[in-house]
Amino acid sequence: MRADRLELDREEMRRLGYRAVDMLVEEWTGLSQKPVGRKAGREELMAALQEPPPREGAPPEVVFERLARDVFPNLLRIHHPRFFAFVPGPSNFAAAVGDFLAAGHNVFAGNWLSGSAASAMELVVTGWLRDLCGLAPGAEGLFVSGGSVANLTGLAVARHAMLGNRLEGAVAYLSEQTHSSVERALRILGLLPEQIRRLGVNDHFQLSIHDLRAAVAADRAEGKRPFCVVGNAGAVNTGAVDPLNELADFCEAEDLWLHVDGAFGAAAAISERGRRELKGLDRADSLSLDPHKWLFQPYEAGCVFVRQGSLLKETFRITAEYLRDVHRPSEEVHFCDRGVQLTRGFRSLKVWLTFQIFGLDAIQRAVERGFELADYGEERLRGMPEFELVTSAKMAVVTFRRRGLSEQAYLEVVARMLEDGYAFLTSTVIRGKAALRLCTINPRTTKEDIDFTLDRLSRICSELLR
Amino acid sequence: MRADRLELDREEMRRLGYRAVDMLVEEWTGLSQKPVGRKAGREELMAALQEPPPREGAPPEVVFERLARDVFPNLLRIHHPRFFAFVPGPSNFAAAVGDFLAAGHNVFAGNWLSGSAASAMELVVTGWLRDLCGLAPGAEGLFVSGGSVANLTGLAVARHAMLGNRLEGAVAYLSEQTHSSVERALRILGLLPEQIRRLGVNDHFQLSIHDLRAAVAADRAEGKRPFCVVGNAGAVNTGAVDPLNELADFCEAEDLWLHVDGAFGAAAAISERGRRELKGLDRADSLSLDPHKWLFQPYEAGCVFVRQGSLLKETFRITAEYLRDVHRPSEEVHFCDRGVQLTRGFRSLKVWLTFQIFGLDAIQRAVERGFELADYGEERLRGMPEFELVTSAKMAVVTFRRRGLSEQAYLEVVARMLEDGYAFLTSTVIRGKAALRLCTINPRTTKEDIDFTLDRLSRICSELLR
Repeated sequence: MRADRLELDREEMRRLGYRAVDMLVEEWTGLSQKPVGRKAGREELMAALQEPPPREGAPPEVVFERLARDVFPNLLRIHHPRFFAFVPGPSNFAAAVGDFLAAGHNVFAGNWLSGSAASAMELVVTGWLRDLCGLAPGAEGLFVSGGSVANLTGLAVARHAMLGNRLEGAVAYLSEQTHSSVERALRILGLLPEQIRRLGVNDHFQLSIHDLRAAVAADRAEGKRPFCVVGNAGAVNTGAVDPLNELADFCEAEDLWLHVDGAFGAAAAISERGRRELKGLDRADSLSLDPHKWLFQPYEAGCVFVRQGSLLKETFRITAEYLRDVHRPSEEVHFCDRGVQLTRGFRSLKVWLTFQIFGLDAIQRAVERGFELADYGEERLRGMPEFELVTSAKMAVVTFRRRGLSEQAYLEVVARMLEDGYAFLTSTVIRGKAALRLCTINPRTTKEDIDFTLDRLSRICSELLR
Repeated sequence: MRADRLELDREEMRRLGYRAVDMLVEEWTGLSQKPVGRKAGREELMAALQEPPPREGAPPEVVFERLARDVFPNLLRIHHPRFFAFVPGPSNFAAAVGDFLAAGHNVFAGNWLSGSAASAMELVVTGWLRDLCGLAPGAEGLFVSGGSVANLTGLAVARHAMLGNRLEGAVAYLSEQTHSSVERALRILGLLPEQIRRLGVNDHFQLSIHDLRAAVAADRAEGKRPFCVVGNAGAVNTGAVDPLNELADFCEAEDLWLHVDGAFGAAAAISERGRRELKGLDRADSLSLDPHKWLFQPYEAGCVFVRQGSLLKETFRITAEYLRDVHRPSEEVHFCDRGVQLTRGFRSLKVWLTFQIFGLDAIQRAVERGFELADYGEERLRGMPEFELVTSAKMAVVTFRRRGLSEQAYLEVVARMLEDGYAFLTSTVIRGKAALRLCTINPRTTKEDIDFTLDRLSRICSELLR
């Protein structure tokens, strides 16, 4: 080792790398027999981790011991087959190896000069996703850190294309079921709270076209400038899919931009069932989609598409004198021109590797399985009289209540499930009342996992009611 | 393998992982004897990579062969000891292993519930960087994807704190040497081009306080609302450091926010020399700093600090019903509340691992070495009559011209250096004229690397002049 050059010998590198592989192979082997993870308190964690930066290095085995003792056990396993909370990140081992290869080669995917093969691969893989989701061939996209930046990117293009970036009087429309990252993105883009209309939903938790029409008309009458409607392709709360075709018709007629937030759901469009559930997805002017959710990638992997692809570059392109060697032949694509990041890692590699190792057929079946597991969960819940279904299985989400349980008790149920460690799910609020929620997009989840989870849940609820 | 569950057997995982380790150990062993990399054309790359998504998976060895043949050779090695272009990313192998561990454990570092240990580690590591850079204890920070989002984050806080997010008449000030990502960030935040003053620089390429004072006064006289000044802590072009103390005095007196773009240079403040060069850095209201540059991390690792830490949360916090189980005890820190991303990977792990494996002393020496190498480069250039120094070594950047070389020839020199493959450096424009530029922050660079690179460069220039 030459520490002051941050350099390891060949053998040191190999040992360190193999050790990491061994640790991760252990993690992924028999995952189902392990707990879903643990949340530790700040005091406990700080006692273990708080220290001044060490002046001297420590042997890798000592460092790994600390990680194995203090760090990795104190995380939730979002990739666990019985992690049904929020939106699970099922991930896959091969893709994690892809992230390692990208980090190890220190790939810069911001421009063609530094990362020509990475840029080409991003063209190929975004092309696959574009076609698989049924988007038009002229649509262009890029990988980003996740849904938040995907939404920010799509909405920035909307602002540019529809408003010439002038915000006075601009108004955007979304539903009360729209993910909060959309509102945050709009705020970052400079819209004030009064420029964001959070509209009601119908019985299926879909944006009401009727309310939308009325709101747009009222705003126009007041001289406001409606410019953008945000539709949901799988709202996280209940899996609701807004009526995308109707929204697209309305937006066309009214000259509005349709941004579809498919961070959770849109990747499901690569499967037949998903395609059916997401009719009209192809009509989005911009679309966000998170491969680190239902496309089984490790964090971070978001993706965004814009139907009129050239608008991405129009919105984001920057130049700089010290970058002048970069901006040359037009056949070269500089992904830094398409989004907020100049320096960008090689996110497309892990997605490519997943397709190469497992193949599209298997990935499509893995997506379909998410739908089927939620259907199964619904069926099981219908057979358990102590539970009451709130929303049926939709986009792999099912929500329900435990009869007789008080509002406050739901948080306690969730806390006890976590403490128990067998499975994890979270609560939410639906029509003003607490509910439990299962999101079943992990293809490694079995029906037994769902059976046992619901049994365990039932028991915990009963204990609380006693 | 259970392909439709995206599941590999223990032995398959191990083989895949070891294969990746072996590939990366080969990459990092004897790096100096390898070319700095290659840029391939789109046609060539698409011929190799363009295909429909494969329906069936392929054996890992076949997939790795494709990567080894078509992908990794067609990238620049930003971590190569003779990569002097743009801002190098020296990276280090141990940190890449950190990224692998983070991806393999699929860590969600967005909130305390899902990632308590990751959140605690981010508190610890951002605390280290805060203290090492001499920032006040009340400063809070977070890891982000890189300088672009770091600047976006800091400037979003400025907009919130100084303008209550109302953009009418707002004006921001920066110098013509400020990185284009700052302007892009301001545009994303809703400022129009006419709200951004790009001011001239003095002989040292520093923002002129005189011009700044005049511009602010003129804007105030017109009823505009100056709110933010952007200072450079190492402008990429020449390494210029704006007079941060004077800027801070001015901003205090004028009630303006001081954002310091230290994406390239600020990490150097962990060393004694860097601290001297960056006097006044601690007075920034917000500061961006990229560990994936001069702190030797693989892409992506940016970082941003805000002096009054609580403003981050005030600016970015969002809530959602399905996240209600997350927002509980106040001792828990949710990093998703501090920036644009909700889902966030575990970026702090690789930085922590670098400190644990190599130790602070070594890292500080590695930073110092960057300064020394540029000093050495300057000395060598002064001894070569065919070259003319344009700016002396500053923050590990030195710029120079080849006497007699036409403006257009500079791009050709760069192209030939790349073709040659021994070393890479890029050109820029300084005071309206082309110049060559060395950025020497890779601690594995030797003096001989610089000698031979300049010799090679000299020869290529001579050939072009013949």
